[in-house]
Amino acid sequence: MTSSFTSVDYEFMQRALDLAEQGRFSAAPNPCVGCVIVAAGKVIGEGFHLRAGTPHAEINAIDSIRSENRSQLKGATAYVTLEPCSHFGRTPPCADALIAAEVGRVVIAMQDPNPQVAGQGIERLRKAGIQVETGLMEPLAERVNLGFCMRMRNGRPWVRLKLASSLDGATALQNGESQWITGAEARSDVHRWRALSQAVVSSATSVIRDNARLTARHDSAQQQPLRVILDKHNELDPGHPFFQEQAPVLLVRSHVDTKQSWPSNCEVITASFTADGSFDLAALMAELGKREINNVWLECGKSLAGSFWQADLVDELILYLAPKLMGSAAQGLLSLPVFESMHQVPSLNLIDVRCVGDDIRIIATKKGEN
Amino acid sequence: MTSSFTSVDYEFMQRALDLAEQGRFSAAPNPCVGCVIVAAGKVIGEGFHLRAGTPHAEINAIDSIRSENRSQLKGATAYVTLEPCSHFGRTPPCADALIAAEVGRVVIAMQDPNPQVAGQGIERLRKAGIQVETGLMEPLAERVNLGFCMRMRNGRPWVRLKLASSLDGATALQNGESQWITGAEARSDVHRWRALSQAVVSSATSVIRDNARLTARHDSAQQQPLRVILDKHNELDPGHPFFQEQAPVLLVRSHVDTKQSWPSNCEVITASFTADGSFDLAALMAELGKREINNVWLECGKSLAGSFWQADLVDELILYLAPKLMGSAAQGLLSLPVFESMHQVPSLNLIDVRCVGDDIRIIATKKGEN
Repeated sequence: MTSSFTSVDYEFMQRALDLAEQGRFSAAPNPCVGCVIVAAGKVIGEGFHLRAGTPHAEINAIDSIRSENRSQLKGATAYVTLEPCSHFGRTPPCADALIAAEVGRVVIAMQDPNPQVAGQGIERLRKAGIQVETGLMEPLAERVNLGFCMRMRNGRPWVRLKLASSLDGATALQNGESQWITGAEARSDVHRWRALSQAVVSSATSVIRDNARLTARHDSAQQQPLRVILDKHNELDPGHPFFQEQAPVLLVRSHVDTKQSWPSNCEVITASFTADGSFDLAALMAELGKREINNVWLECGKSLAGSFWQADLVDELILYLAPKLMGSAAQGLLSLPVFESMHQVPSLNLIDVRCVGDDIRIIATKKGEN
Repeated sequence: MTSSFTSVDYEFMQRALDLAEQGRFSAAPNPCVGCVIVAAGKVIGEGFHLRAGTPHAEINAIDSIRSENRSQLKGATAYVTLEPCSHFGRTPPCADALIAAEVGRVVIAMQDPNPQVAGQGIERLRKAGIQVETGLMEPLAERVNLGFCMRMRNGRPWVRLKLASSLDGATALQNGESQWITGAEARSDVHRWRALSQAVVSSATSVIRDNARLTARHDSAQQQPLRVILDKHNELDPGHPFFQEQAPVLLVRSHVDTKQSWPSNCEVITASFTADGSFDLAALMAELGKREINNVWLECGKSLAGSFWQADLVDELILYLAPKLMGSAAQGLLSLPVFESMHQVPSLNLIDVRCVGDDIRIIATKKGEN
């Protein structure tokens, strides 16, 4: 069904999207959802989903209505960024709550990609006689839940590859020195992205070489991401300071030595391998999907970055460019096969380009995706 | 003398700066200058300098005043982006014209760096009893005439190095293929920069390998830049299609073969050399300064780009980044010495970051300059 929306509809859905964003550091593994309830052109209730196990956005919006406005709920319009759920999870179905509230119209930005919902919430509302319109600002609603949508549709997280280089594409000097290419603001932005992710993926090489802790040290952080370390050559030692951080670790190794004892925050698993003997990154991402991880922040050297790219597992590139020139003898950003023609070169869509402190931040997705 | 300016002063000077910009494709070797004449809070006259040999901004502003407003000129305020001249060039001194017009106040963005003026215009106005205030929006006025100011102060042009690469800093594939890294809009922007420059500098290698014409093919172009080609190995042949373009050529060679005859648009000179046997780029830039070239657009391979950078002759970097990944085996942006420490790495100031078509354009200057 095609619906025609008014500018007022856009305005209220934008507000619902802004509310949804308020859950972005805490809602996972659930999606971020916002809801605005409008009667006689005025907002009477607002809500968003904060954390799994707590009420959904629609319930919070209904509960936020002041007692003197309660009577206006009947026949009101609810704007929801994601289709109201129809199943009993940790909380009862939101579709039922909206039906019980006797709202007259529900405007939904996008259908829930969760196969447990997938249109059933909409159907339930319609069967109850409620006017339902869908698709308003759908691309924006999708962007709020890139990770959740990817996991529901493909069983794996949304993968963001973080890269940082000088203007001429160097990540380190020839001698390997790389500390502090970017400024304090860019580094703080990286911690914010880690806080937005449920897992940070890196290699044992990076941990050992850079003494990286890979925790989210940012005011917004509500929880620490799972630190997933690919340790192909079984190099990491249980005594490494990396394990002294409170954040949990999933250590992926070629084989697990049962005689070694690991700290309590560290789970050790054996990797699957592809035919050519490298770690099966798709299988690993599927494993993270099973663990309900929506967003992966990939922060590693050019070899692992290139492997993820070539396995078609990088969904978004977050590139920090420092206003420096390091010379072509310096080390490059990611390892790719040698291209013979410009037609083979992968193209990206620019999503966002801005200055972060003294540096430039570029967000891009693979061409054809968004 | 410190002056305190009002918001109205800023507004009129901004208008004068906008007017000055209108001469940017044609005023060279003269500076771009704009002038606004204000009486009783209203603009009564406006002018800018279009081309050497034609009237200066102040004269055009006075001449633009409608006959019914002529009487308001006496006691009016003139806003000028550059100090009015005090010397007889191809036109009489503008300071005298303002004195004759009996304006009461002259607000000047910046002193003329031309040693023939350098404060004498201001002095002349003050001696005539006119209130003169200087320094309003000086950094912006300086940016309008970067090339002119550089030439007046240092006897050489302002040098802009154009670079284009993929997001990961590659300018060409390993096999050398590099055509069309950036899109049509970025390429058009390059032609606009060539049109803004009085000389385009490149190497014979680039001309031969890329079959580059290096002309300004842009609607804004008022004249073609001098194409300065560094031909160290005396490779270019008088029959090369490069010389069939109407634009003039200055061919710089290791030695001049007097038996060779060159097309009429081509002047051949012998390079000076530095102690290490390379072309003396500082001497060449001084030569271009003598030829009254304000702005050089440097468009070349990484070797010559690196030589200019290391000779401290690059004033501004114009970097186009195509949203592509080409892999670290690809060729880099510019050749620099191997740095041993991040402290040695040159830092830049970002002046402008924006999207041009599908690409990103970054303008940066050396740290500490602007």
